[in-house]
Amino acid sequence: MASLLLTRLSLHSLRSSLSGCRHVSKVAPQAQMEWDYDGPCMKTAVPGPSSMERLKQLGEIQNVDAINFFCNYEESRGNYLVDVDGNRMLDVYTQISSIPIGYNHPALHKLMADPNNLSTFVNRPALGILPPGNFADKLAESLLSVAPSGMTRVQTMACGSCSNENAYKAMFIAYRNKERGPGGPTQEDISSCMINQEPGCPDLTILSFMGGFHGRTMGCLATTHSKAIHKLDIPSLDWPIAPFPRLQYPLEEFTRENAAEEARCLEEVEDLIVQWRQKGRPVAGIVVEPIQAEGGDNHASADFFKSLHSIARKHGCAFHVDEVQTGGGATGKFWAHEHWGTDDPADIVSFSKKLLTGGYYHKNDLQADKGYRIFNTWMGDPSKNLFLVEVLNVIRRENLLEEVTRSGKALLQGLYALQEQYPGLLSRARGQGTFCAIDIRDDPTRSKILLKARDKGVLLGGCGERSIRFRPALIFKEYHVALFLNIFNDVLAEFK
Amino acid sequence: MASLLLTRLSLHSLRSSLSGCRHVSKVAPQAQMEWDYDGPCMKTAVPGPSSMERLKQLGEIQNVDAINFFCNYEESRGNYLVDVDGNRMLDVYTQISSIPIGYNHPALHKLMADPNNLSTFVNRPALGILPPGNFADKLAESLLSVAPSGMTRVQTMACGSCSNENAYKAMFIAYRNKERGPGGPTQEDISSCMINQEPGCPDLTILSFMGGFHGRTMGCLATTHSKAIHKLDIPSLDWPIAPFPRLQYPLEEFTRENAAEEARCLEEVEDLIVQWRQKGRPVAGIVVEPIQAEGGDNHASADFFKSLHSIARKHGCAFHVDEVQTGGGATGKFWAHEHWGTDDPADIVSFSKKLLTGGYYHKNDLQADKGYRIFNTWMGDPSKNLFLVEVLNVIRRENLLEEVTRSGKALLQGLYALQEQYPGLLSRARGQGTFCAIDIRDDPTRSKILLKARDKGVLLGGCGERSIRFRPALIFKEYHVALFLNIFNDVLAEFK
Repeated sequence: MASLLLTRLSLHSLRSSLSGCRHVSKVAPQAQMEWDYDGPCMKTAVPGPSSMERLKQLGEIQNVDAINFFCNYEESRGNYLVDVDGNRMLDVYTQISSIPIGYNHPALHKLMADPNNLSTFVNRPALGILPPGNFADKLAESLLSVAPSGMTRVQTMACGSCSNENAYKAMFIAYRNKERGPGGPTQEDISSCMINQEPGCPDLTILSFMGGFHGRTMGCLATTHSKAIHKLDIPSLDWPIAPFPRLQYPLEEFTRENAAEEARCLEEVEDLIVQWRQKGRPVAGIVVEPIQAEGGDNHASADFFKSLHSIARKHGCAFHVDEVQTGGGATGKFWAHEHWGTDDPADIVSFSKKLLTGGYYHKNDLQADKGYRIFNTWMGDPSKNLFLVEVLNVIRRENLLEEVTRSGKALLQGLYALQEQYPGLLSRARGQGTFCAIDIRDDPTRSKILLKARDKGVLLGGCGERSIRFRPALIFKEYHVALFLNIFNDVLAEFK
Repeated sequence: MASLLLTRLSLHSLRSSLSGCRHVSKVAPQAQMEWDYDGPCMKTAVPGPSSMERLKQLGEIQNVDAINFFCNYEESRGNYLVDVDGNRMLDVYTQISSIPIGYNHPALHKLMADPNNLSTFVNRPALGILPPGNFADKLAESLLSVAPSGMTRVQTMACGSCSNENAYKAMFIAYRNKERGPGGPTQEDISSCMINQEPGCPDLTILSFMGGFHGRTMGCLATTHSKAIHKLDIPSLDWPIAPFPRLQYPLEEFTRENAAEEARCLEEVEDLIVQWRQKGRPVAGIVVEPIQAEGGDNHASADFFKSLHSIARKHGCAFHVDEVQTGGGATGKFWAHEHWGTDDPADIVSFSKKLLTGGYYHKNDLQADKGYRIFNTWMGDPSKNLFLVEVLNVIRRENLLEEVTRSGKALLQGLYALQEQYPGLLSRARGQGTFCAIDIRDDPTRSKILLKARDKGVLLGGCGERSIRFRPALIFKEYHVALFLNIFNDVLAEFK
């Protein structure tokens, strides 16, 4: 299939148009978006000399081990990230999956040019006490226009971690209120909570999954189990951890085996809930990603998630679906949980990244019963809501979810073909929409492939122990897929 | 003294200039800043009909118990917040102390008008891996230009809570690295941390103080002990909590008593450190505010903080000074800890609010030894650094720290005079710069005073059990103080 794509496209026209580039793609993209660049263009190794100089400078201020290179965001456009050495890369990682419609989208610049919007950037309110007059309208235009089924309530937050932290708090509060009944907290509840003791600070837990990632603040981190580097040396809470299904791919070839694996995990979840309730540390909520992203793009079936929700319901646990990475359209639906085909997907759905603002949707009964229980100074940032309104307009106007579905099919088919072509090197191609991944032979090879790809003008990221995750923007078209597959094929050929 | 202020100023000129206002101030401000309004102007009760309508609308989406009213940020200027009903209030609370140089400052609008800056707003990077080319320069111009003594390193974050969460993580990591020596983590460290168990997730603690506030995510919340509403029903970590001095005011009249109280608390701190180490749960860090803000504007002396730092040093605990609310100039120095007169104030200093971006400064040995240990997707927001550069320029150009010192003196003298005038109603006037507070007879009276003041065009906030905190912007001049004191005097007269 990848070879089909190769032959379908002209290999020469782009090369001639990009003089001065050290590496140019062999595929001519169709310039459907005139503000996008027409291909990668590499001028130096990456990081180049200008990045190296800045790395030294920043190293005096911060740990720079994780820095890839320094960017020229002014010159970046569409699917292309330009660095400070003038290298232009096709971005299939998009700032850890957080750029929804590419760099410098004209719609977002237009918003900035409107003088009516400036005050929103200049005056950041304490949203929980003094919201701007248009706050509810902007929520309706932005977040509520894409609210998950069954949810009409949303709380904004600044980032993914504080979204999950506050979602957990909402689940604890709801659980205790239900347990307590109409009487309200006792004097003992109130005095003991001030010194972190029971019953005011109850010994409730959140059940999470091995391989899950829900952020790095201490509450979130107690539910994150993807990589040791995230957790090492940080005190934690002893909470129940269930196995997440380890499915075999392609899913349709292993339905029986995968169903058995999912049943095993569900049984374990239910056992844990019962055990932990028996030891006086009940599970107030279950948190799960629709696709474990950071943990290695681990999928599970719609049935698995629906059964998990049923188990939660049966035992009085809230069901929290963390869509921080999966939300925003990359799976071909706005929320990954829409693939489950149910109108009652969850009790609480958190988001951030492509949504530009953090936050969470929730059902009515997960709303805190009093003000100031879910609260902080900023409670989000209305300037991010402004951008989100425009992003959603672009997604609708340009039918980007359909485009993602189309590009995603081409990407997955291409990965299948490459996997067939390089059987010792690649395995487990998988994905929904463009939210795809593939496994590499081993971690050192993965690292080399990522660097080689970058030198050839494609920016990728890893996840899990030996996966590469594909996280392009929603404007990643079929011709970008073809361009990517060709370059990726070139890279892989060197590892055969 | 307040009466002195009253007689010094014309009581009539303002009233005549503000026709159509239900309540006008009796003091004529000197219009030193032409972009600022010249006084409050009240047209309706607050919340007015337009706010009430929006409250109902937002109530369908969120809990609105804490909402005061809805704002017209476009029309707000300088020290004045305008609401959607056209009421204009002198803002002495500034979005929970987070607006540094007033609303719609021309310098910030000028920044927004520069097309070179737009890309920074439109393209939010993952700063930890792909920073913009000017990132180190912007840090140097902004945060590093006001770095606390002894600190050349700074890590940006999105908000106050994640600043403290990550500061705690940095302290835990440094503590374990020191404990472990050069060998690095064991296989057992790495495998146990994945399931939240020791030794990988060690049983280390942070020592905090009763009355302290450090945020509301779960790590921060374990060190927050100001109000039950913040903590009730949220599981916590059992960490040591020390008493914070309960001083008598004015400080200079009770030096002996206050010194004894501080000595008692310091002794308790040292006892706790020893006890908790003995039970195998060592204190990795001590966190403290220079003035306990949320907890009631509780002060302690420079000697107290210097001794606390010595105790931390002696026992190998990191010393974390949380300047989220105190930082940014309101005490008359950029950092409240500068009042301690030491060139080694802390190992780590966190900030947010008036700094517009969250983050923390730290000494070299508190830098994580590897990348991705202190990390999240955004790691702050460079557009906030842009604003901060301008805010700092304005502070320097307009000598705002001197202004704050001058206004603060007038404010505190005025509060002393009022306290003398209303002895049964007011007590414990205290403050540094304009970062002042006063206690009210009881909580219900405080609530009434806050509402009355708002109706007369002054926006204030409470803190602690029965205090009012004053948190004006840095552009709050002496004539704003006079204006405020007059209105406050009017309000208090009704409670005599």
